[in-house]
Amino acid sequence: MTPQDLEDVVLEDGERPAGEQPESESLDEENRLKPEFVRNVHEAVREGDYDRAYELVEPLHPADIADLLELTEEDQRLDVARAIRDQMSAEVIAELNDYVREQLLANLPAEIVAGIAEQLETDDAVAMIEDLDRDDQRAVLAELEPEDRAAIEAALAYPEETAGRLMSRDFIAVPEHLMVGDLIDFLRENKDLPTDFWEVFVVDPAHRPLGTCALSWIMRTPRHVPLSDVMTRDQTLIPVMMDQEEVALRFQKYALISAAVVDESGRLVGQMTVDDIVHIVQAEAGEDVLLLSGAGEGDINEPIRDAYSSRVRWLVANLGTALIASLIIAMFGAAIEQLVALAILMPIVASIGGNAGTQTMAVSVRAIAMNQLTRSNTRRILWRETRVAVLNGATVAVLIGLATAAIFSPMLGAVIALAVIINILTAGLAGVVVPVLFERLGQDPAVASSVFVTMITDSMGFFAFLGLAVVSGLVG
Amino acid sequence: MTPQDLEDVVLEDGERPAGEQPESESLDEENRLKPEFVRNVHEAVREGDYDRAYELVEPLHPADIADLLELTEEDQRLDVARAIRDQMSAEVIAELNDYVREQLLANLPAEIVAGIAEQLETDDAVAMIEDLDRDDQRAVLAELEPEDRAAIEAALAYPEETAGRLMSRDFIAVPEHLMVGDLIDFLRENKDLPTDFWEVFVVDPAHRPLGTCALSWIMRTPRHVPLSDVMTRDQTLIPVMMDQEEVALRFQKYALISAAVVDESGRLVGQMTVDDIVHIVQAEAGEDVLLLSGAGEGDINEPIRDAYSSRVRWLVANLGTALIASLIIAMFGAAIEQLVALAILMPIVASIGGNAGTQTMAVSVRAIAMNQLTRSNTRRILWRETRVAVLNGATVAVLIGLATAAIFSPMLGAVIALAVIINILTAGLAGVVVPVLFERLGQDPAVASSVFVTMITDSMGFFAFLGLAVVSGLVG
Repeated sequence: MTPQDLEDVVLEDGERPAGEQPESESLDEENRLKPEFVRNVHEAVREGDYDRAYELVEPLHPADIADLLELTEEDQRLDVARAIRDQMSAEVIAELNDYVREQLLANLPAEIVAGIAEQLETDDAVAMIEDLDRDDQRAVLAELEPEDRAAIEAALAYPEETAGRLMSRDFIAVPEHLMVGDLIDFLRENKDLPTDFWEVFVVDPAHRPLGTCALSWIMRTPRHVPLSDVMTRDQTLIPVMMDQEEVALRFQKYALISAAVVDESGRLVGQMTVDDIVHIVQAEAGEDVLLLSGAGEGDINEPIRDAYSSRVRWLVANLGTALIASLIIAMFGAAIEQLVALAILMPIVASIGGNAGTQTMAVSVRAIAMNQLTRSNTRRILWRETRVAVLNGATVAVLIGLATAAIFSPMLGAVIALAVIINILTAGLAGVVVPVLFERLGQDPAVASSVFVTMITDSMGFFAFLGLAVVSGLVG
Repeated sequence: MTPQDLEDVVLEDGERPAGEQPESESLDEENRLKPEFVRNVHEAVREGDYDRAYELVEPLHPADIADLLELTEEDQRLDVARAIRDQMSAEVIAELNDYVREQLLANLPAEIVAGIAEQLETDDAVAMIEDLDRDDQRAVLAELEPEDRAAIEAALAYPEETAGRLMSRDFIAVPEHLMVGDLIDFLRENKDLPTDFWEVFVVDPAHRPLGTCALSWIMRTPRHVPLSDVMTRDQTLIPVMMDQEEVALRFQKYALISAAVVDESGRLVGQMTVDDIVHIVQAEAGEDVLLLSGAGEGDINEPIRDAYSSRVRWLVANLGTALIASLIIAMFGAAIEQLVALAILMPIVASIGGNAGTQTMAVSVRAIAMNQLTRSNTRRILWRETRVAVLNGATVAVLIGLATAAIFSPMLGAVIALAVIINILTAGLAGVVVPVLFERLGQDPAVASSVFVTMITDSMGFFAFLGLAVVSGLVG
C-alpha cells in the first residue's frame, strides 16, 4: 500500500507518454496560452461569432480564462467577457490582475458583483472589493447577505496589507477537553465548516489559542487520546495589525503551514495559510525590482496615465540629480576646453561608479528585506563591501588606465585609474549606507535609494576625474 | 465549538497584552535578534565563557540560532558553534544560509555530517549535501544508512533546481479500491509513514496517480464511502525534470497545496508542497533584483572572492559599453571644443535615457518571469511603452529645454529637448525588445539585459544630442 509495495507491478500498455500532460490546443509547453489560440478567440469575437468563442474557451481552466482576458486589448475585453458569458465565474474574477478586474467590474451592476463576492472565500472577496472606489464599494456591500457583509466589512476595517485584511475567517477552533474521536465526529457531523483546512486550533474559554493540531496527527491517533496530547503548544501568533511582509518572513523563518491571527486582546480571530504567503512573497520580492528601477507598480496592465505619473516622477528626480552632476562639470569648463579628452573619458568614470553602486545597493536592499542586514552586522557588511570595492576598483582601474595611457597619455591614464578607484569605493559605501539610512528612517529602502546612489556616483565620478586632472597639472 | 459559539465568553484577567508575543530578551519587535544580545554572545565566546554563551542561546528557536551564526564574523563562527555544542541541531543546519553552512560543514568530519543528514527530511538533506564538493559528498554518502543514501543519490541524479531534486520522497499513496475507513485504519496502524502530510495520493496498479484526497475531506466523510468518491481526479502533474521556476508558476496559477511529481513513464515518484514553493518564489523573485543589477548571487554571506568575480565581470562589460559611448563622443570632439556647454549637458541626456530604459526593462523582466508578457501580447506592450515614453519624454524635454534655453541659448534648448525625447523613446523600445529577445533566445532576460539597454541609451543619448547640435548649425 506504500509506494514501495507497488513498485514491482508491471507497467501497463497505453500509458501516458513521458509524464507530460496530453498535448493541448490552447497551451504551449510552458503552460502559457498559444498566440494562435488567443488570436482565434479574438477573431471570433470581432466577427460577432460568440458561440465559436464560447466553444474555444470552454476547455480552459479559470486561471487560463483570466490569462486570456489579460492578453486581450482593453477595448475588446468586455466583448470577450460577453461572448464567454457564464464561463466568467467567480474563480475567473478572483484570478484576474487587479487592473483588468477593475475594468470589468466597473461595467457590471452592483448586484452581479455582490453575487460574485458571495461565491468567493472572504479573503478573495475582500481583495476584489477593496479595489473598487468608495461608492461602488458601498453599493456592492449593500447587496450582500448580512453575514458576508459583516465579514467583509470587518476585514476592510483593517489597513491594507495587514494580517487582519488578508486573513481567512474560515477556520476551525475547538476547546481543549475534546478527545480525538470527538473532534472527528464533530467534523463529520457539522455541515457548516470550511471545506479545506489542514490544522485545527485549540482555544481556551476566552477563545485564545492554546495550540494547533495538524490533521495528519489527528488522523493517525487513536480516538480516545485527548487533543491536548496531540497538539503543539509552541506556536507563532500573528497580531492582526502585522504587515504582510512581516507575516511572510515569520512563515518562512519558522516554516509554518498556517498560523493563528489574534486581535489586541489575544483572541483568535482568523488564520493565515502558506498558500496566501506565496502571493505575498511573490508580490513583495517582485516589487523591489520595480521600485529600485523607479517603475512604480510596474504592472503591464496598469493604465498608461498611472504608469506615466509613477515613472515621470523618478525621471524628473533623476533630472535634478543629473543637473547637480552638470554643475560639477561646469566648474571644470575651462579644463575641458583645454583638453577635450576629458569630455570623452568622463562618462566612463561616472558609468562604472553607477554600475558598482547599483550592484551593492541591490544586495543591501535584498538583505534588508530578508532581515539579514540589521544593526548587528551593518559595520561588518560595510567592511566587506569596502574590500570587494577595492578589488573591483583595482581591476577596472588597471584596464582603463592602461588603455588611456596608450591612446592619450600616461598621466591621463593615471588620473582616470585613480578616479575609477575612488568612485567604485564611494559607490560601495553609498550602496550600503543609503538603503540602511532609509530603513532606519522608516522608509522603504527600495523606493528612493537608486536616485541618491546614482547622484553620489555621478557627481563623485566627474569631480574625482576632472579634479584630479587639474590637480595633476594635466590642464592648468 | 466553532468560533461563533465561543464569542460571548468573557475575557479572563491576566491575559497576554495586545496579541503580542511576550517581550523577549533576544528578539526585537520585528523578530530580529537584538544587537546587544548578539554582542553579548560574541563577547562570552571571545572571553572563552562557553557556558554563558550556551545559556544565552538556549531559549532561541533553531531559526534564530541560524540567524545568530549568520550574524557572526566568519572567523568567530566555529567558536560560537563549539560553545553552543548540542544546540547545533540538524534543524539549525537546515536553516543556515548556504555559504555559512558550507563553512561550518567543511570543518566537521563526514560521519557527523551524515548523522545530521539522517535527521533531516530527504529534501533538506539533499539541499545540505548538494553544496559540498565532490569528495566531501562521497565521504558523507558513504557514511549514510543504505536507505537514506539511495534516496539522496536518487535526488542528486536529477539536475539542480528541477522537481526531481527538490521533491519530497515521503508521501502517502494508496490504491483506488479502499474505503475512507480502511485508509484511516492504515494511517493509524502504519508507523513508518511521514508525520506531516495534507493530501493522500490515489494510484493505479502501475503506480500512476489517479487523484488526490485532501485530509480534510477524508476526515469529514463517513468510513464506508469509497476513496474514489472523495478524491479529485483533476490534478496538475509535475514532471521530474521541470524547472523549479515553472513548478512555482504552476502552484501559483492553480493555487495548489501539493502536487504529484511523476517520472518519464508517468509513475508517481514524489510530491512538491506549497511550503517548498515559498522558498523558490522568494529565491527566484529576489534573484531578478540582483541579476538585473549585475550583482550575481548577491548574498551578503557570499565569500568576497565570489562576490568579486561575479561583479567584476559586469563592471568590465560595462567598461566595454562605456567605451562605445566614448567613441561616439570622440567623433564630436571638435564640436565640444567649440562649445563646452555640450560637454556639460550631454550626461543629462544619457542619464535620463538610462533611467527610462531601466524602468521599462524592470517591468518587462517581471512580466516575462510571471508569464504575463508572451508572444500573444508583445506588440501591444511595445505600443503601450511607446505611448508612456512619449508622455515621459515630452514632460522631461519641456523642463530641460526651457532651463537650457534660459541659461545657454534657445537653440541649445531645442536641441537638448529633442535629444531627450529621442532617447526616452529609444529607451522604452529597448527596455521591451532586449529582454524579449533574450527570452526567445532561451537566455534569462534578467542576466544581460541591463548592460545592453544601458549601452543603447548611453550611445543614443550622446549621438542624438551631439549630432543634433552639429546638424542644427549650433557648432560648425
